[in-house]
Amino acid sequence: MSSSSTPPSADVTAAILVIGDEILSGRTKDKNIGTIADMLTEIGVDLREVRIVPDVKAEIVAAVNALRARYTYLFTSGGIGPTHDDITADSVAEAFGVGIDVDPRARAMLLERHRPEDLNAARLRMARIPDGAELIANPVSKAPGFYIGNVYVMAGVPQIMAAMLDEIRPTLTSNAPVISETIEAGAIPEGNFAGELGEIAAAHATVSIGSYPSMTPEGFRNRIVVRGRDADAVAAARTAVEALLAGLRA
Amino acid sequence: MSSSSTPPSADVTAAILVIGDEILSGRTKDKNIGTIADMLTEIGVDLREVRIVPDVKAEIVAAVNALRARYTYLFTSGGIGPTHDDITADSVAEAFGVGIDVDPRARAMLLERHRPEDLNAARLRMARIPDGAELIANPVSKAPGFYIGNVYVMAGVPQIMAAMLDEIRPTLTSNAPVISETIEAGAIPEGNFAGELGEIAAAHATVSIGSYPSMTPEGFRNRIVVRGRDADAVAAARTAVEALLAGLRA
Repeated sequence: MSSSSTPPSADVTAAILVIGDEILSGRTKDKNIGTIADMLTEIGVDLREVRIVPDVKAEIVAAVNALRARYTYLFTSGGIGPTHDDITADSVAEAFGVGIDVDPRARAMLLERHRPEDLNAARLRMARIPDGAELIANPVSKAPGFYIGNVYVMAGVPQIMAAMLDEIRPTLTSNAPVISETIEAGAIPEGNFAGELGEIAAAHATVSIGSYPSMTPEGFRNRIVVRGRDADAVAAARTAVEALLAGLRA
Repeated sequence: MSSSSTPPSADVTAAILVIGDEILSGRTKDKNIGTIADMLTEIGVDLREVRIVPDVKAEIVAAVNALRARYTYLFTSGGIGPTHDDITADSVAEAFGVGIDVDPRARAMLLERHRPEDLNAARLRMARIPDGAELIANPVSKAPGFYIGNVYVMAGVPQIMAAMLDEIRPTLTSNAPVISETIEAGAIPEGNFAGELGEIAAAHATVSIGSYPSMTPEGFRNRIVVRGRDADAVAAARTAVEALLAGLRA
């Protein structure tokens, strides 16, 4: 697989940090990276890096600080439940050097789901929010996420993460959305067009041109995807790619 | 979601580096992380970190050098095809400070699939191997992966990556395999057992105890997973967790 680098016009960037031993053990297959990536592409934010780290505070703090400093937005998923080392909130507070305690707004949200007598110490962990953070509503199970600075902290359960993402999506700044056009190369082998495709990519530097082989029961099939923010530039690159493929089919 | 940290007896560690704009754009949903993670768990190697980076040489070089220095093994997927910026091999050569050129062994493998007259410059890119690297056979489409030092470079197409993983699996050093036992907590809410589960985790420090809620049409269901390398320690922790749950069901 290959593609040329992200269109140069991009300036609003993002990273994702997935937190959880269950992903690293393979026991749980991550679904959140793809969900967040799709949303960011739809609104024209360039996802530049993803990391997955274990439930280890020092690892989470180091990753949060590395990624929040480098990208416009950092989105995290996982580690905000009630159990002994749902430690994301405490780790984010440490990364920002702020305090953390039970937040009355978050506690009130938990009371929409739990009776006061059920709000034990474990459940109250889900109301621990770093000082200065704003809450992200959780329409599924109430326990909120939060954002502080440019870091958005969401749940790991995919249905809850997606609901939190819907909450914050309208608040995000974005680039011009990316236009993506797919050209079917069918069974033409990548190696037959790779050289000329590279020349086309070099001649159309403001767009991203990717070649994506996939294996089917009938053998390899290839797609070429042209992505960019300038409609004319995308159209011009598409025309060049189609001419290349037409020549190979002739 | 949560789990306590990886069992302390672990010393053989690994990281995964996924290379490709198509993953970051959401256009392709990664399958390789889960495949590699499952294999590493089966043979008892602790996957400690995953990164996904774009097709940008400086990003790949930085990630390769950060991860290969820190973990026993680094596995990469993506960016070894014939197109203009399948740049993983060149990036790995740069990370190691070695040269790279067409490798006669790799060229011979390509000739098992392609006629000599079809071995154009683009396809020969797939035979570019860093100096000192050993090849990883590709039974699917011949173009090989390679390993140099502790870095294993594999294809991005899942079927090819899996085949390459089968090739190298027998050569990997591992810890004692991890024993994993799953205890169904059913509909008992996480918040009802989280406090005592934390105490059990603290009292059984050589095992990893995770609590994994999932949403079903009937509402949340929870599983508790006990993982460790010592069968007696895993059994003791399992007994304690089952006693806790039995008390809550009573």
